[in-house]
Amino acid sequence: MGAQQRRSGLGTNQEAVRRHNLGTLLRHVHGTGQMSRAELTSLMGLNRSTIAGLVAELESLGISERATPAGGARQGAGRPSAGVAIAADGPCVIAVDLGVDRAVVARVGLGGRVLQRAQAPVPVGGEAWQVGASVAALIREVVEDAPAASPLVGIGISVPGMVRRSDGLIRLAPNLEWHDVSFGGIVLAALGLDVPVSLANDADLGALAEHTRGVGVGVDDLIYVSGQVGVGAGVIMGGHRLEGAGGYAGEVGHLRFDPGGRPCHCGNRGCWETEVGAHAIAEAIHCPPDKVAQLDEVLDGFDSPSPELCRTGTAIGHGLASIVNMFNPRLVVLGGYFRSLHQLVGPDIQAGLSDRALPAPLESVRLTLPGLGSDSALLGAAEIALEPLFVDPVAALGAALVDVRARLAG
Amino acid sequence: MGAQQRRSGLGTNQEAVRRHNLGTLLRHVHGTGQMSRAELTSLMGLNRSTIAGLVAELESLGISERATPAGGARQGAGRPSAGVAIAADGPCVIAVDLGVDRAVVARVGLGGRVLQRAQAPVPVGGEAWQVGASVAALIREVVEDAPAASPLVGIGISVPGMVRRSDGLIRLAPNLEWHDVSFGGIVLAALGLDVPVSLANDADLGALAEHTRGVGVGVDDLIYVSGQVGVGAGVIMGGHRLEGAGGYAGEVGHLRFDPGGRPCHCGNRGCWETEVGAHAIAEAIHCPPDKVAQLDEVLDGFDSPSPELCRTGTAIGHGLASIVNMFNPRLVVLGGYFRSLHQLVGPDIQAGLSDRALPAPLESVRLTLPGLGSDSALLGAAEIALEPLFVDPVAALGAALVDVRARLAG
Repeated sequence: MGAQQRRSGLGTNQEAVRRHNLGTLLRHVHGTGQMSRAELTSLMGLNRSTIAGLVAELESLGISERATPAGGARQGAGRPSAGVAIAADGPCVIAVDLGVDRAVVARVGLGGRVLQRAQAPVPVGGEAWQVGASVAALIREVVEDAPAASPLVGIGISVPGMVRRSDGLIRLAPNLEWHDVSFGGIVLAALGLDVPVSLANDADLGALAEHTRGVGVGVDDLIYVSGQVGVGAGVIMGGHRLEGAGGYAGEVGHLRFDPGGRPCHCGNRGCWETEVGAHAIAEAIHCPPDKVAQLDEVLDGFDSPSPELCRTGTAIGHGLASIVNMFNPRLVVLGGYFRSLHQLVGPDIQAGLSDRALPAPLESVRLTLPGLGSDSALLGAAEIALEPLFVDPVAALGAALVDVRARLAG
Repeated sequence: MGAQQRRSGLGTNQEAVRRHNLGTLLRHVHGTGQMSRAELTSLMGLNRSTIAGLVAELESLGISERATPAGGARQGAGRPSAGVAIAADGPCVIAVDLGVDRAVVARVGLGGRVLQRAQAPVPVGGEAWQVGASVAALIREVVEDAPAASPLVGIGISVPGMVRRSDGLIRLAPNLEWHDVSFGGIVLAALGLDVPVSLANDADLGALAEHTRGVGVGVDDLIYVSGQVGVGAGVIMGGHRLEGAGGYAGEVGHLRFDPGGRPCHCGNRGCWETEVGAHAIAEAIHCPPDKVAQLDEVLDGFDSPSPELCRTGTAIGHGLASIVNMFNPRLVVLGGYFRSLHQLVGPDIQAGLSDRALPAPLESVRLTLPGLGSDSALLGAAEIALEPLFVDPVAALGAALVDVRARLAG
């Protein structure tokens, strides 16, 4: 409700307040997986009876269950406050991390619990329908052990490319060579299911997941910069995802870096990606072209940084300086193969940044690795699929599918 | 309430709802200066009696008054819905636009009405206390005709530099040569008044004003790029001001533009500002250094663009391409001397942008001039000073000063 309310200047009425509070309470429990009523009372600024009513409603919806508080949670001398935990058979979502060389699929519950996962290679140069069929097969795999009572709220898909916010159309995924692909519809058709499906850019989802349950919890201004094959960023500012008019914000790989530099696949010359993208780095370290999609693994094989990698580290830092001047983030999370590079040439990255950023934004920014390892985008895909539950749990459950395993088998 | 509610996940109670609704209603009336109850009922999604109660409260606070609706506002066959208008003696604020060569001060009422204005040159190389004394004198001037009943809610100050969000400290105003200046406190001391004072960067305030009542009304994703002496940007994304961790977001003048370019005052080489800042342009057109702060007037004297200015236009477009790739705005508003440049070399700016931006964000972006002329930052300063009225009108009036003219005379 918050976003809509602020956008359109709507007033608030009793029923809207109740649904807002129910979703907000669930978002709190989702954050940590379990919470006491006393904590919820204090966090939400509502009285105990209101909280008790909301908790009872979530229980009756099968979303949460009563948890016995741990001894440590005892407050004062009275009875410990009863706990609220995510129900074991509660709602779940399917998260898909579509990479340029492989797809990872997971069934994920509230609290960000990965309940089942599977992965498979993505055929090089594969058509969207072929990749969609592979993803559908992985989805069938991860619902095999799903309890019949657990409703499927939706599917979230992380995409290595530009996704139109209005309808999830993949406008461009350069390294899959896809233009204007309705991948959500393709996956649903391959499954023969009708369930809400959401798509977003992988770096955007990495930022979202790190903000929700990774290294960026409690950090309102963070940027997740991801080296996959190309380079992109997901931006959270003031606690909100920065999306832009069409959903394409964060294309930092195409910042002007050196007007005399190399040609970029976008048609320009000297974009940042031509210096720090996977193809440029692979060339610098004489990595064979067919290994570019596994650049992180290749880099993990290095014992010590070569001079070429140190120069790459400096170039990463110089590009980050423009990003830091532009956004003034508190945290820059280095994802994808930038994780591996940070292990090797972290000091060069930091020095490049410190050399070039303005003092005021530099003093409060910190470079860090993802808290969720290589699962940031996957868990971000789960987050966007779960989101309707935090806006209006009742409506989201109404749109969910039950007995998914049987439906997919049939 | 909205922002706080979303940040901290607070629940909502009845009293908070009432204050939120009162402020939201006032924000609507502030937007257009006058509105019918029927429009408010429809905009806010509340019933007529709730709206009537809120309107009565605003009237009793002296903020609004009953307006006779124009004949055209008649709805259907019944009585026309009574109107709500800003009260003539209602609350006001002082807005200060501190430029590098002059200060403009205005008394501004709700609805963005400029009630009185004054301006004076800022002494070159002036100390902060000297400039503060000039600004205080201008403030005394603009309250001379203020009605005794009109409460002063606060002072808003637009600054050509980086302002720390937490306390309004001016960290750096390069062209005033100020570092770490508490200018708000200096102005209050010169006035001998204690009233809320807010400071923010001029481009940020330009963006805010253009979004509230300029060319960006209804546009949720816009960037106001301002050429003063340096170059900065104010960014509105998803309807919210992009501030960053410390309030320094939008320093687009220090985007890396050409690593082999000229030295920048920030210590780097080839920042965008070294190509499109006032000093670079003045040099290109052989404008004397003492006219740099009036570059807009110098440019307005050109009949046709010189080849140097065409090249500057292209460089502006190339820099805007990085900004468009990064933010995916719907609107880019060209403020400061970029207004004059757009009249001269608009096609070169557009061509530079179109050549270098990615197709997806390019297709939805439009370059435009400010709707508020050279008053964007001034009116933005009024907006931040008025803001407490839209969060909680009762509390904001409690903190306001009455009979300001007499207090300043005494």
